[in-house]
Amino acid sequence: MSGFTQTLRRAWEENDSLLCIGLDPEIERLPPRIAAEPSPIFHFNKAVIDATHDLVCAYKPQFAHYAACEAEDQLERTIEYVHRTYPGVPVILDAKRGDVGSTAERYAIEAFERYGADAVTVNPYLGGDALEPFLKRADKGVIVLCRTSNPGARELQDLDVGGRKLYQLVAELAARRWNSRGNCLLVVGATYPRELAEVRAIVGDMPLLVPGVGAQGGDVAQAVRNGQSASGAGLIISASRSILYAAGGAQFAAGARAAALALREAINSSRTRPS
Amino acid sequence: MSGFTQTLRRAWEENDSLLCIGLDPEIERLPPRIAAEPSPIFHFNKAVIDATHDLVCAYKPQFAHYAACEAEDQLERTIEYVHRTYPGVPVILDAKRGDVGSTAERYAIEAFERYGADAVTVNPYLGGDALEPFLKRADKGVIVLCRTSNPGARELQDLDVGGRKLYQLVAELAARRWNSRGNCLLVVGATYPRELAEVRAIVGDMPLLVPGVGAQGGDVAQAVRNGQSASGAGLIISASRSILYAAGGAQFAAGARAAALALREAINSSRTRPS
Repeated sequence: MSGFTQTLRRAWEENDSLLCIGLDPEIERLPPRIAAEPSPIFHFNKAVIDATHDLVCAYKPQFAHYAACEAEDQLERTIEYVHRTYPGVPVILDAKRGDVGSTAERYAIEAFERYGADAVTVNPYLGGDALEPFLKRADKGVIVLCRTSNPGARELQDLDVGGRKLYQLVAELAARRWNSRGNCLLVVGATYPRELAEVRAIVGDMPLLVPGVGAQGGDVAQAVRNGQSASGAGLIISASRSILYAAGGAQFAAGARAAALALREAINSSRTRPS
Repeated sequence: MSGFTQTLRRAWEENDSLLCIGLDPEIERLPPRIAAEPSPIFHFNKAVIDATHDLVCAYKPQFAHYAACEAEDQLERTIEYVHRTYPGVPVILDAKRGDVGSTAERYAIEAFERYGADAVTVNPYLGGDALEPFLKRADKGVIVLCRTSNPGARELQDLDVGGRKLYQLVAELAARRWNSRGNCLLVVGATYPRELAEVRAIVGDMPLLVPGVGAQGGDVAQAVRNGQSASGAGLIISASRSILYAAGGAQFAAGARAAALALREAINSSRTRPS
């Protein structure tokens, strides 16, 4: 079992939470007081993290939100801050990397050494050899796109490949081949609860990263019922905008805490835990 | 026809070249004199660009090689330098982005506004709606992974989907749907020449980005014969390591020019041009 997976399991238990907060700051939605400071994204993230660290099983910064505004340094500082201040909470870099072997090595260095992430999201289209530079780092989590939360997910992922769908085959490959070190996870969107149940049936207790609740409209209770593992856990349910911007203006951190509390409770009330 | 596509076609003609140089600097392979300077990657790139700008149809910096060593500023400077000094040569940012709509918007800002790239590579696994934030910028090129150059490409891309293979379906989607603005291209590896011919048959004269010659061992003559369009062009044949490191030490720029000249000639001698 990987370092990431162990940390994740402990965070599930200690914070009694399957909730992951997506740190996807939009500079134009930050409170004016923070937006006027140097490193506004870091300071916004720090306040959200301080207000929610005991309510989550992970944080998930989304790379594009930093890269689009030249804020790589603030991404670094955010991850470093979580590790230093709340070492029990793992950080997933959501970057959906996918490239051939020698370049994938560089992406692994970026995610795990430069940014110090505990896990990274990756794209399976290039095949297993392109995932291996990530997977071979057994202490890190490698979270492979399986069934994404967007409407167009159907276009390729639902194609019939020999009596099953492409995303089901990706789940089979993850369970049978890519998880030999116990550090492979999958992304399945909450917007497709039936598919979530199908993937769960294929992968046993492999943790699933589930985006799509909150702003994208996925039903929390259905996602939990269909996605949970036999132990009533196995999920990293990610929400971003619905938490980060729950309250406007200066109250954003308190608003984020309230929204995170409510979502953790909504998740927990739908879990079936062994008695 | 997009701004990128027009620039590309002019570069094909003016430089009589289908060659694209991949700017994938490896800090440990730079000549010691350059490695000791500030901004060594930029200075290495600049020297290669100055030595080869009349021999290429495009440059293609690979994102991971910059991100792994915190050199985003040198990536920006490299692209800016090409645009300012050799405005007839387009720059492709090889980043293989792929994410849901709202995040894809951020990636499009990153590629086209922050870095000022003329085109970007993207991954089709999430479907057409995830490509639209890129495609809607009609003056920019959007280069979709179809059949990649790595051995593991077979694992997903060769799956049978209703009587054809997944990469063939991606080629069909590109030709029929994603290219409505004339700015969609595909990636097909030189290491799979048969597949290159099949994709060419599907997409008409759509330009194809072809990595995999040089260090990856793809046969140049076969790639050109199988991949060229009816006009004897239609290809962006990318090589990186075999050109950047053709000569060691202080002679790297002259070595890069000699290697680029030889590869352009090898490509041109295999083209079938209308008389």
